[in-house]
Amino acid sequence: MDEFALIRRFFTGLGPKVPEILLGPGDDCALLQMQAGEQLAISVDTSVEGRHFPAQADPWAIGWRCLGVALSDLAAMGARPLGFTLAITLPDADENWLTEFSRGLGALADQLACPLIGGDTTRGPLTLSVQVQGAVDRQHVWRRSGAQPGQIIAVLGSLGSAAAGLRSFHEQPERLHDRASWDSLEKAYMLPQPLIQEALGLSRGVSISSAIDISDGLLADLQHLLASSAVAAELDLEQLPLDPLLLKRLGKTLALDAALHGGDDYALLLTLDEADFPLARNLCPQLTRIGRLVKGAGIRTPEGDLLEPEGYNHFSGQQEGS
Amino acid sequence: MDEFALIRRFFTGLGPKVPEILLGPGDDCALLQMQAGEQLAISVDTSVEGRHFPAQADPWAIGWRCLGVALSDLAAMGARPLGFTLAITLPDADENWLTEFSRGLGALADQLACPLIGGDTTRGPLTLSVQVQGAVDRQHVWRRSGAQPGQIIAVLGSLGSAAAGLRSFHEQPERLHDRASWDSLEKAYMLPQPLIQEALGLSRGVSISSAIDISDGLLADLQHLLASSAVAAELDLEQLPLDPLLLKRLGKTLALDAALHGGDDYALLLTLDEADFPLARNLCPQLTRIGRLVKGAGIRTPEGDLLEPEGYNHFSGQQEGS
Repeated sequence: MDEFALIRRFFTGLGPKVPEILLGPGDDCALLQMQAGEQLAISVDTSVEGRHFPAQADPWAIGWRCLGVALSDLAAMGARPLGFTLAITLPDADENWLTEFSRGLGALADQLACPLIGGDTTRGPLTLSVQVQGAVDRQHVWRRSGAQPGQIIAVLGSLGSAAAGLRSFHEQPERLHDRASWDSLEKAYMLPQPLIQEALGLSRGVSISSAIDISDGLLADLQHLLASSAVAAELDLEQLPLDPLLLKRLGKTLALDAALHGGDDYALLLTLDEADFPLARNLCPQLTRIGRLVKGAGIRTPEGDLLEPEGYNHFSGQQEGS
Repeated sequence: MDEFALIRRFFTGLGPKVPEILLGPGDDCALLQMQAGEQLAISVDTSVEGRHFPAQADPWAIGWRCLGVALSDLAAMGARPLGFTLAITLPDADENWLTEFSRGLGALADQLACPLIGGDTTRGPLTLSVQVQGAVDRQHVWRRSGAQPGQIIAVLGSLGSAAAGLRSFHEQPERLHDRASWDSLEKAYMLPQPLIQEALGLSRGVSISSAIDISDGLLADLQHLLASSAVAAELDLEQLPLDPLLLKRLGKTLALDAALHGGDDYALLLTLDEADFPLARNLCPQLTRIGRLVKGAGIRTPEGDLLEPEGYNHFSGQQEGS
């Protein structure tokens, strides 16, 4: 089938109609009309086969996942989705693969009301670049830079599960095909749930001073937020939200290690005034307080032990200057 | 060097400041504020090494080209650039390559006032996905669907040159490194000039009923426009704008073939009322009238010979249903 037939068959009509989208795929550009008082938030995430997801993974899950990791960035700004573009590079046009891939993609597009509005289809090694467009009320934009000493640090979502799920797939690659049997850790890795609704609910009710999504590991992403805000953090490791299955599977020490350093969680890290926390918990019962912001730099335990990130980095194997 | 150092060093500060961009790279999302009365136009284009450009090509030119082909889609909507994102997948972090690549990218970003506002850097086979964001006055959006029988067809830019330039590089691959010596055909292929200023000038002065950029060949892209508008075309092959060097290099028959079927020209195809053509020519002296729209379907010469597209298609080597 040719490129245009492929687009018509697998990438048309994914997701619902959204009033801001005036023109979707099929012209030189898509057209969006923002509502008054709203800003446009955009973010792009690339998923490369064998690097961001295993080559043999269930294509339904690959479709869900490549959109999910991008939507997580909208959640981290407090933005609601308007639509996404997909730049897909495919080694070939495998019908079964594409059918399942587009179903998984469409399932999340439907769930979070984020239609496919454009893209590009090319041939080459499997690479998926998803750019999400979202709208955010200009009064309620969450940036990384607003955290203040004295505020508390909270997490929405579980930590460390995705790292344990990935390990499970490494140990039992045959499970990659068996989506129906995935446990909560395996789902955390392959089917991340972007916390869009939770973020929008919080955003409307509580003042969040800064936010980031946790894709590189809690310590690495907290460090980004702290650097943007020029503050330090004290983390209470006993409070980290861990899936009971993670504790059972890895034991406490390794579970904690996965929570601090493991990537791909797509949980949200938020900072807010301590006085607002009860209301925030009412709006979002899964919200967990994990520490507080202090003056200075770095991340420490209440006992003063320094915690340092070891997050995944794509080019870290190379020497500076190579 | 690590991913963040790479981004800081090669992908920071490309292009000028633009008032609509409230927040560029460095947070979970970039933030844009549209002006009242304007719509957002977005388009994404992926360039894969060895498929959309030769692997050995001058990295400065690869940088220019991957942004240029995306900006051409904004020109085809009559939109002015606001900013672009770059999802770059790199096999390694080669400093010399990245320095030249980012210089070429930055040169076009500066020329057309289109800053880099976000992106993603991953490791894998060289793949470049550029998404451009533009603003277009809601009264002057050019779509593919507005062409009317009786109007004329015009082209801005030369046809066939890029195909001849690509052939020249195939025959003499060593010329890919020698940017300073490239002739007009080689430049047409490796350094396409998106016709943003020309499109904006026309857009302000003349009513353009439909437009498309020519990336897959004149006939293929004209066919897309005709299908969207439900009209037919009569093309005067004697009027096609051909670079004198193209005629000299290929002779008239092959030059015409390149103009009709060769891709990568990034010229603009426009339709407008005949009465507006003199004014349009005053605004844009390079505008060439090449035919007219008639009722029906298909593309013919004034003598009635059918002209059919043979444009490049990434998946055309595969059987339907394979």
